[in-house]
Amino acid sequence: MRLQELGEWELLQRLSAFAPAGQLDDDAALLRERSGRTLVVNTDVLVEGVHFSDTTVSPQDLGWRAAAANLSDLAAMGCTDVGGLTVGLVAPGDTPWDWVEGVYRGLSEALARYGGCLLGGDCSSGGQRLLAITALGHLSTERGAGPIRRGDGRPGDWLICSGPHGLSRLGLALLQGELAQEERDGLPPELQEEAIRAHQRPRPRLDVVQELITVRPEHCTWRVGGTDSSDGLQLAAVNIARASGCGVLLEKEALPLAPEFHRLPQAERWCLGGGEDFELVLALEPVWAETLCAAMPDCSRIGRLIDADAHRVCWADSGEPLDPAAGYCHFQ
Amino acid sequence: MRLQELGEWELLQRLSAFAPAGQLDDDAALLRERSGRTLVVNTDVLVEGVHFSDTTVSPQDLGWRAAAANLSDLAAMGCTDVGGLTVGLVAPGDTPWDWVEGVYRGLSEALARYGGCLLGGDCSSGGQRLLAITALGHLSTERGAGPIRRGDGRPGDWLICSGPHGLSRLGLALLQGELAQEERDGLPPELQEEAIRAHQRPRPRLDVVQELITVRPEHCTWRVGGTDSSDGLQLAAVNIARASGCGVLLEKEALPLAPEFHRLPQAERWCLGGGEDFELVLALEPVWAETLCAAMPDCSRIGRLIDADAHRVCWADSGEPLDPAAGYCHFQ
Repeated sequence: MRLQELGEWELLQRLSAFAPAGQLDDDAALLRERSGRTLVVNTDVLVEGVHFSDTTVSPQDLGWRAAAANLSDLAAMGCTDVGGLTVGLVAPGDTPWDWVEGVYRGLSEALARYGGCLLGGDCSSGGQRLLAITALGHLSTERGAGPIRRGDGRPGDWLICSGPHGLSRLGLALLQGELAQEERDGLPPELQEEAIRAHQRPRPRLDVVQELITVRPEHCTWRVGGTDSSDGLQLAAVNIARASGCGVLLEKEALPLAPEFHRLPQAERWCLGGGEDFELVLALEPVWAETLCAAMPDCSRIGRLIDADAHRVCWADSGEPLDPAAGYCHFQ
Repeated sequence: MRLQELGEWELLQRLSAFAPAGQLDDDAALLRERSGRTLVVNTDVLVEGVHFSDTTVSPQDLGWRAAAANLSDLAAMGCTDVGGLTVGLVAPGDTPWDWVEGVYRGLSEALARYGGCLLGGDCSSGGQRLLAITALGHLSTERGAGPIRRGDGRPGDWLICSGPHGLSRLGLALLQGELAQEERDGLPPELQEEAIRAHQRPRPRLDVVQELITVRPEHCTWRVGGTDSSDGLQLAAVNIARASGCGVLLEKEALPLAPEFHRLPQAERWCLGGGEDFELVLALEPVWAETLCAAMPDCSRIGRLIDADAHRVCWADSGEPLDPAAGYCHFQ
């Protein structure tokens, strides 16, 4: 059996047999320290030709994106306090120093913005440019804060997300010249700029975690289901449904589209499966969800969790399951 | 300027400008926790064709080696307590699952032996097989233990190492069929087996750190210069000399050769620059060094640190500097 036949999901299932039960179920790993604090650790690999291309991101943007993607996984676990990251850099010997410098400059910009520092790393020659980044951070200990876990959703929770989806995919399409001239002309220039920025300079939503902690109603104890939408909004919802043992109903009219985004024929598809939006998707008690959405206008309700035998994502109006073909799959 | 022109040392110098001063000077990073404990973090990248080849290590041995190399960097910082590791796996889609399973089995064997667990990771397709591993551990808090740092050697220290050198290189030569039949026939079978084992199943010397802590004489406060010899014994000595601002005198008759190893014409060269022996090279006050060597027969004195303007490594008998061409260099 080859990896391309297994697919990423089955591969991860098989690899999780080598870790303690449940260890690989979430966006990042948690390690309890003796002080009572919890360390959050995440490793991401970015490969040229798979995750990035010189034609659509500059080295500096790549460094930023690599850091941001990793910090987004920390945020998805409930981290508010970034310690820093280690970088494994692989590149062919003929790679210009300027490229490497640009990447580390972008990484440093993201760290300067979100906290932490470059902790260490390793370099090697290799046939393909590649970054393997490990980010370290801590959960907050403020106001009874705890981890965010995919499996902590419950029937009755609202499903909310922290911002519009599909923008990063639109940005990529614009940079790659995928859109026909008339499609492009139909999009306001501000939307095009926002989409390119979303693709090149995504923001890890550590701010949403902080707000979540701040606005928690006194009578809600800490229980937050969630993940980030790095692999698409739909897959985020699927992962929460599966891990929480619930069904998820998505509201079509509440899909998080940026203004004017609906003009695109691909709008719904990219919103659900475009990926790399790096927003948080959270399952929360309605009262807490409402407070959060009131405090952060970026956040909105997109659906709810229900008690259902099939742990899948359906449309709220028709009850039909979403097309499962959306979302990423490596090795295929 | 391209990376192959820069060389690894200059590349690391340039990259260290992106980290806090001194942050990248050691084998791994230290992060002080609020509890007073110190977290040790290390990232290593292993690339097919550069660091390993299917012809000389099985997938299981590769997994073991990858873990061991990383844990050796933790040991080189004074770590005794392994938390675990994250694994970034890159492989072409046509890679057999059996290969991946073998690698993770080997990783798990090393963790079962030395402590910790598989904490998390990431997978991606890519053109070349590759492992990017980040290991986490803690410094001991026993008996006033602290970190081991390259720059903590002082003139008058003994330079000791924790075992024979050159064996891993001999193992590689045997596996690759590099030696002439008569050279091979001149080597006792036990030495050949030991060399192949040293190459395929290296041991991170966490036990030496533990013993170092246990045998510290009451009147010596914690100060240990050191590193591991993953890039060769000579480079380990050079790195200690540079970082400690000392000279190092190596004693030729004290070179750490395995029994019968001197029969090989390459013995001295491989002992100094073969690399991947993963022993510890330590600069210690003589009384502490003596106690350690008495307690651990693997450990032996190989030289001493002296007050010298040129921070280099010379032969004790002639005063001549060692040939600087030994040691690894990536990107060339």
